[in-house]
Amino acid sequence: MIIPGGIDVNTCLMKPYLGTQPVDDFFQGTKAALAGGTTMIIDHVTPQPGDSLLEVFERWQEAADKKACCDYSLHVDIPQWNEDVKDELELLVQDKGINSFQLYMAYKDVYQMSDAQLYEAFSFLKQLGAVVLVHAENGDLIAQEQRKILKMGITGPEGHPLSRPEELEAEAVFRAITLGNRVNCPVYITKVMSKSAADTITQARRKGSVVFGEPITASLATDGSHYWSKNWAKAAAYVTSPPLSPDPTTPDHLHTLLACGDLQVVGSAHCAYSTLQKAIGKDDFTLIPEGTNGVEERMGFVWDKAVAMGKMDENQFVAVTSTNAAKVFNLYPRKGRIAAGSDADIVIWDPDCVKTITAKLQQSAAEYNIFEGLECRGGPALVLSQGRIVYEGGKLQAQQGTGRFLPRKPFPDYAYQRVNCRNQVKSMQGVTRGIYDGPVYDVAPAPKYITPSPSAKTSPTSHQPPPIRNLHQSNFSLSGAQVDDNIPRRSGHRIVAPPGGRSNITSLG
Amino acid sequence: MIIPGGIDVNTCLMKPYLGTQPVDDFFQGTKAALAGGTTMIIDHVTPQPGDSLLEVFERWQEAADKKACCDYSLHVDIPQWNEDVKDELELLVQDKGINSFQLYMAYKDVYQMSDAQLYEAFSFLKQLGAVVLVHAENGDLIAQEQRKILKMGITGPEGHPLSRPEELEAEAVFRAITLGNRVNCPVYITKVMSKSAADTITQARRKGSVVFGEPITASLATDGSHYWSKNWAKAAAYVTSPPLSPDPTTPDHLHTLLACGDLQVVGSAHCAYSTLQKAIGKDDFTLIPEGTNGVEERMGFVWDKAVAMGKMDENQFVAVTSTNAAKVFNLYPRKGRIAAGSDADIVIWDPDCVKTITAKLQQSAAEYNIFEGLECRGGPALVLSQGRIVYEGGKLQAQQGTGRFLPRKPFPDYAYQRVNCRNQVKSMQGVTRGIYDGPVYDVAPAPKYITPSPSAKTSPTSHQPPPIRNLHQSNFSLSGAQVDDNIPRRSGHRIVAPPGGRSNITSLG
Amino acid sequence: MIIPGGIDVNTCLMKPYLGTQPVDDFFQGTKAALAGGTTMIIDHVTPQPGDSLLEVFERWQEAADKKACCDYSLHVDIPQWNEDVKDELELLVQDKGINSFQLYMAYKDVYQMSDAQLYEAFSFLKQLGAVVLVHAENGDLIAQEQRKILKMGITGPEGHPLSRPEELEAEAVFRAITLGNRVNCPVYITKVMSKSAADTITQARRKGSVVFGEPITASLATDGSHYWSKNWAKAAAYVTSPPLSPDPTTPDHLHTLLACGDLQVVGSAHCAYSTLQKAIGKDDFTLIPEGTNGVEERMGFVWDKAVAMGKMDENQFVAVTSTNAAKVFNLYPRKGRIAAGSDADIVIWDPDCVKTITAKLQQSAAEYNIFEGLECRGGPALVLSQGRIVYEGGKLQAQQGTGRFLPRKPFPDYAYQRVNCRNQVKSMQGVTRGIYDGPVYDVAPAPKYITPSPSAKTSPTSHQPPPIRNLHQSNFSLSGAQVDDNIPRRSGHRIVAPPGGRSNITSLG
Amino acid sequence: MIIPGGIDVNTCLMKPYLGTQPVDDFFQGTKAALAGGTTMIIDHVTPQPGDSLLEVFERWQEAADKKACCDYSLHVDIPQWNEDVKDELELLVQDKGINSFQLYMAYKDVYQMSDAQLYEAFSFLKQLGAVVLVHAENGDLIAQEQRKILKMGITGPEGHPLSRPEELEAEAVFRAITLGNRVNCPVYITKVMSKSAADTITQARRKGSVVFGEPITASLATDGSHYWSKNWAKAAAYVTSPPLSPDPTTPDHLHTLLACGDLQVVGSAHCAYSTLQKAIGKDDFTLIPEGTNGVEERMGFVWDKAVAMGKMDENQFVAVTSTNAAKVFNLYPRKGRIAAGSDADIVIWDPDCVKTITAKLQQSAAEYNIFEGLECRGGPALVLSQGRIVYEGGKLQAQQGTGRFLPRKPFPDYAYQRVNCRNQVKSMQGVTRGIYDGPVYDVAPAPKYITPSPSAKTSPTSHQPPPIRNLHQSNFSLSGAQVDDNIPRRSGHRIVAPPGGRSNITSLG
Repeated sequence: MIIPGGIDVNTCLMKPYLGTQPVDDFFQGTKAALAGGTTMIIDHVTPQPGDSLLEVFERWQEAADKKACCDYSLHVDIPQWNEDVKDELELLVQDKGINSFQLYMAYKDVYQMSDAQLYEAFSFLKQLGAVVLVHAENGDLIAQEQRKILKMGITGPEGHPLSRPEELEAEAVFRAITLGNRVNCPVYITKVMSKSAADTITQARRKGSVVFGEPITASLATDGSHYWSKNWAKAAAYVTSPPLSPDPTTPDHLHTLLACGDLQVVGSAHCAYSTLQKAIGKDDFTLIPEGTNGVEERMGFVWDKAVAMGKMDENQFVAVTSTNAAKVFNLYPRKGRIAAGSDADIVIWDPDCVKTITAKLQQSAAEYNIFEGLECRGGPALVLSQGRIVYEGGKLQAQQGTGRFLPRKPFPDYAYQRVNCRNQVKSMQGVTRGIYDGPVYDVAPAPKYITPSPSAKTSPTSHQPPPIRNLHQSNFSLSGAQVDDNIPRRSGHRIVAPPGGRSNITSLG
Repeated sequence: MIIPGGIDVNTCLMKPYLGTQPVDDFFQGTKAALAGGTTMIIDHVTPQPGDSLLEVFERWQEAADKKACCDYSLHVDIPQWNEDVKDELELLVQDKGINSFQLYMAYKDVYQMSDAQLYEAFSFLKQLGAVVLVHAENGDLIAQEQRKILKMGITGPEGHPLSRPEELEAEAVFRAITLGNRVNCPVYITKVMSKSAADTITQARRKGSVVFGEPITASLATDGSHYWSKNWAKAAAYVTSPPLSPDPTTPDHLHTLLACGDLQVVGSAHCAYSTLQKAIGKDDFTLIPEGTNGVEERMGFVWDKAVAMGKMDENQFVAVTSTNAAKVFNLYPRKGRIAAGSDADIVIWDPDCVKTITAKLQQSAAEYNIFEGLECRGGPALVLSQGRIVYEGGKLQAQQGTGRFLPRKPFPDYAYQRVNCRNQVKSMQGVTRGIYDGPVYDVAPAPKYITPSPSAKTSPTSHQPPPIRNLHQSNFSLSGAQVDDNIPRRSGHRIVAPPGGRSNITSLG
Repeated sequence: MIIPGGIDVNTCLMKPYLGTQPVDDFFQGTKAALAGGTTMIIDHVTPQPGDSLLEVFERWQEAADKKACCDYSLHVDIPQWNEDVKDELELLVQDKGINSFQLYMAYKDVYQMSDAQLYEAFSFLKQLGAVVLVHAENGDLIAQEQRKILKMGITGPEGHPLSRPEELEAEAVFRAITLGNRVNCPVYITKVMSKSAADTITQARRKGSVVFGEPITASLATDGSHYWSKNWAKAAAYVTSPPLSPDPTTPDHLHTLLACGDLQVVGSAHCAYSTLQKAIGKDDFTLIPEGTNGVEERMGFVWDKAVAMGKMDENQFVAVTSTNAAKVFNLYPRKGRIAAGSDADIVIWDPDCVKTITAKLQQSAAEYNIFEGLECRGGPALVLSQGRIVYEGGKLQAQQGTGRFLPRKPFPDYAYQRVNCRNQVKSMQGVTRGIYDGPVYDVAPAPKYITPSPSAKTSPTSHQPPPIRNLHQSNFSLSGAQVDDNIPRRSGHRIVAPPGGRSNITSLG
Repeated sequence: MIIPGGIDVNTCLMKPYLGTQPVDDFFQGTKAALAGGTTMIIDHVTPQPGDSLLEVFERWQEAADKKACCDYSLHVDIPQWNEDVKDELELLVQDKGINSFQLYMAYKDVYQMSDAQLYEAFSFLKQLGAVVLVHAENGDLIAQEQRKILKMGITGPEGHPLSRPEELEAEAVFRAITLGNRVNCPVYITKVMSKSAADTITQARRKGSVVFGEPITASLATDGSHYWSKNWAKAAAYVTSPPLSPDPTTPDHLHTLLACGDLQVVGSAHCAYSTLQKAIGKDDFTLIPEGTNGVEERMGFVWDKAVAMGKMDENQFVAVTSTNAAKVFNLYPRKGRIAAGSDADIVIWDPDCVKTITAKLQQSAAEYNIFEGLECRGGPALVLSQGRIVYEGGKLQAQQGTGRFLPRKPFPDYAYQRVNCRNQVKSMQGVTRGIYDGPVYDVAPAPKYITPSPSAKTSPTSHQPPPIRNLHQSNFSLSGAQVDDNIPRRSGHRIVAPPGGRSNITSLG
């Protein structure tokens, strides 16, 4: 079976943590990718608060150009929201070919943005035509739970899932989608780890939201029971956020939703730290660097657990491992399909090959493989990258530095077409009324007993004249009439144009 | 048909706004209650930020004792969360007989609490055995939307629903329930106004959450199309928060959920401002004082739209208009049933009486009735309060000052039984492991390029020894073994006890 | 804790099978009931096709009067639908005090009724004011599956669940509810065994259907994995229909739905056959007599798995084990509550007692207990039946023949109040139009090529004039007008009155 | 915008009714198709009970070859299930290029099949590799309702929807999907007319069922309120089955599900009868010939109500109007895409053209257009069929007889890939046990009081030895052991391989 090379849209090959970096860099990581049938990755540039996005982006690009064995592109994470960021974002989109940026709802006091900041960030990114990636977990509540659990004396890796129950993921997904709907902006949830998060996405899509969900190798092939392992190093190897769900039926559920199109893209969130590094958190689970492997195993497990089980057909397999990603991030049709004019990233897939995953045989430099011992049907027999054979019969022939950076244009059709259309339809309208000229309660300018209007402070009223005494009280007459022929009715369901009277209305949208 | 007198758990008869108060005070408001078959109310004490809760509570009690024509109790709203509040809350619960307090997720910069504050407030109130009332709307997003809409030039009452779309209500409900689940605390959503908010509650109850939902007269009998009325004063009369939904199928849906027990209590949120007062916001919808009538019409519309339509049976009618409220707020069995030992608050209900609602015939002092012109089947023929006839054949014989304050004990069974039980079952457990004595990455004490752990800041690590270099590197040997016999499996669904090995575990809950 | 005695509404203590009867008769069975805190049972009278319902009913009553140790009543199963049955049903309802009858959607060629017969039976029973009990499984498909599985050579007890997958149960539940909605008749699903069946009931209630669901001890405390036991006799002990679901998360899910009121009544479906009897099907699973134990363990497991886990509060425990049953079947308030005037069937419940279920200590005469080895918290400390102590400190003092037959009146409020109300509201209306006097296609009286109208045969057109040639063809003129001012609009949701113009309509309901 | 020509998979251009045929034949109908941008149709061959499928098929093909102006293929409806049909089906599939056959769950006593017949038909068609089309309505209940409604004196077209409430459609859809799951066979629901039917499909797909849903022009663009029109001829024009839902929010809901992929194919069910013909049922709504127009308006309304509203993007528009149909029915890639090697059926689509639908300007020969007066944005500017311009600037240049018959191969990948895969995985397994040699209850060979096993009759026990007395009673010893190490556990969700022990099992699948 000949298929387009896989695209892994979520790797972290240089993500710094307390001065150290993952053991799989762009060389190591892209080799692993190729060995699993993936011929392109999109890595996350992860600046720290205060960093220049542009500088960090360039550092990443430089490293990747030297080391990557397959084509790549980059997402840029936004660690903080402020005015300075905006200029850099414009540059990144317009000059550097970046169309996707990650925002954080977790990591309190570090990356976490408030709902107000998220609203502004969504609005700004939407105008640039970018895809908004969201790390969806409720950081406030995680911080509270972490404190509680540490206070209880639980310091091991099991504290990680205990402090991040799956409803904190679902809650944040719900909120992110609500934000996306308000701003009318495409939202892409990275790392869908639990059934309830996935179901929240599914329900929202059913109501018309433009939202995409990305389960990862880990959530598709294993579960969170391992956090309770007696072997600290093994348990720590599973630490990633959101955590793997202890519910063992999770992978099956996520594959079902991938198969019917409710989830769209499979990532790996590959971010490999060694036990040496993980051990930074040996006395405090909140210090364990977060990340698991998965770039090599990504395609195999989707085949094994979905296609080979009769859940998913082969077309959908190609869609979720390659084509959809290419479309969401505007790489299509150069990537994600086999055709004249497309890049020659091609895989010959062997549905029948069976192998048992083990750290001993993996490309990754990490000691642990979180899928250790699992059997996996399906894998690449031959991989072509840019037309050259890079993997064949189990042997890698990858070449460092051959990977090219692919710039991506904003406003990808797949994400923005409906958004643009709704922009035109959804303009809001006010009602044109005669001016109210009845009496108005006289709000004392500086009352002794101050009771400000709740809303008063929230609206930009400081720029507006204060409500003053209306002198035309003589005009006051309540007609008594309650009949109102202009009552508009909204139909039972979603409206695109809000209700409004007809002839007297000024469109303001 | 003889039924227990109704209990309206949501009135605001003294809620101040910019120095003015509602036109229906405890006298006016309780008369209206009695005329509709309601023989007890619970009013919201609404302190402003900086006020002493206790002082404001006493002011309320004093006023009510003088004026109320029926028995009453009080909720206390908490305008801000800080240490001072805690002492007053303890006093209110232990000495004053208050067991319910309202928190706000909206009204940014005034009442709104962050998720972290809500978590702490929930935790504290739970220990006191109180019921947590929540005003559920996303205040951050409302503030953003208000700004946008005012900027568009929309200043009329239609700006109110446009800036508060129903998904902002549903989002906050989802978050409030998530908080309640985390803290294991009963949550009571005041004013359920939309289908999506109600559905969110329904789904959470299906998963076991201890949450109650209170639709109000307005959401059960009319809809938000009136905000687009050409008559400013009429449109303004409907302004309340969360707003009435423009979706006309909302009342029908809410009645269905009341009938099958997914929503539990019908309130009125009666808070009557005159047109004079509403006109404060004539040039800016965010300044319109919020509140609608409904205390008199509450029971009638539930009968008309649910019982008379065959949706609900008579037992459930009594439950949602009286008994459930008595149980949630620990007034049962003194209130909410007819029996020896219970108060003689009794109504003879006439299922066949039909009247047309009009401001001309109402008890309320407001000029507008938001149900004007609607026909309503069902109403009280005779009302007994404390054993005295106070309403008969359309005539009120209420007497000012006869209403008594009812203190309420904490830990109402109806709300707390399951909570208490889960407290015992749900204790979390850590894993007892041998100490990790392998090598640890050496985090430089003050690295030049600072990359703090996201989580590091959120956990109380300042009290803990910093991760230092582990010297026992010679001990390091990776067993390679991945077999782990102690992997616990969580069953497919909710667990009350988290997974953990058996004999080696120290219970820490 | 003092609670009303339990009511088990589903026992089969005399159900004949190939000439033999269960080993637990009315004596044995009611002793077991009392030992578990249940002080009343309703047993199924199970006539065979061709039997007189009345005669079989009397045989049952006679046996029970002699043997029962606690009060009892009887359901009557209807093995076939025909005209003769109707008279007996009237007698049973009006003279004998029976208000509940079971119909079968399974057991092809024996008890199974077609949808048309079910419609007629539902309609007839509704007029009598009876509660329609439904055994919900798709018998046609079961028969097909059984044939297939036997043909594959599978003859053991595992063939039972393989031939009755849970979707055949859910399908029949869906159909039964649809029938109930059409006829506007209360439907009671006996033996809810699977998550999908329970979810179907839940969804229907959410849309307003009058339907009740009865999970049983077996589905609440164990699962269908035992059918694959290597021990034939043990595997056979679990054979009952619908079968236990192999999904181990089923009990947890059913308890959740009981706790939030989506399921209402807990039965036991106690029907105990010995291994000797089960062995009739040793070479063919379709011949194994169906039935499991559960009358003694019923209340304990609800306590253990719902109340003790914090899922359910104590009031709801009483409701699902006693009060709801009393209400559905019109025994309330004589049974199902503790009050002056009610029967003195009272239990002192010990929430802390723990016992391990084993066949050695059970009251039942069967060799196997399907809950063998399970631990159960909660059980009766003392049981009063008719005011006499019958069980105390583990000792039974039951007395044969003391149980009384309780007749039950039709039209129980709990089931019929909404039904009656809808009868009045839901009358259908036709449109009054001018007569169509345009041309009519001339249907040849006996065309050579016969193509009958599909619908033609289904309507009682034999009593109606055949469509003949319309001679007024000259009148024919198509106005061309498409404007129609009388288009009624149905609101987004359920309508009780179907749409229709107002003044011109003749009500026909 | 250049798109592949539309494919309308549901037309009835020759469906006989009482000796008459639709006014739009293959010439008229395909002209209308082309004028709407549709360049291929699949028409239903509709034999009557007793007809030879093959003969009728050939009559259809002959007529179409003479008249059709665009390429076409044919479905064959199966009016009855019996042995004779099987040979013809094999011929049709293997020699004639037909891979799709319609079965009926409605039209009692005419076309309706029982569940047992459906099971057999599904099984047979699956072996042939055909797609099973299902007309999903519960015929038994419709017949009952029709009788009731006629008896009430309602004879007009409003009787049609009153006797076919939407839950009868949803019920049949649920049952059809259950059948499909049992047989492991792709199911295609023709004419999805209501929200509840569509939701049933959606839920089933979420659980992995291989089912497709086809809403039609009528259900996507209008609603059932017109049945209550005062104009009999107009009301009758809307009569089709399942009926249009009176719920006005239906079209919006169906478009949402099309947009997110839960429904796949848009048909028209075009079947145009004149008022003269409709008038056959002027005194009895059950005699009105069923069918509405829609072939010309099909693509326009999907654009207008989904794409132009921002619900659906352009790719999905092409998918639901053309590509998906081509894939389901194995016409892809010859049809349904634009590429070298595909047929030159191409449309230039004008998103901005606006027209008002009216019978005066339509291609159809019927007097009424059920979309009369509706405005529609979007339509073809130019249509190429087989490379020739057949429509340009509003002018048709279609040529009778140029349409070619397209044979279609069985086992279309899009429908059968997952089915085939599941065939391999899903084989059922029995348990290998020692033989039960304990005592067996002695069933008397001819008992006086006959009580046959319910299941006994359903299983093919006639070929098996009767259960006889087991003489080895001395062997009998109940071990008492309940420990069973071989208990398999099914995970929380769907299993593909049923539980079973490992080494001792004989695979029988």
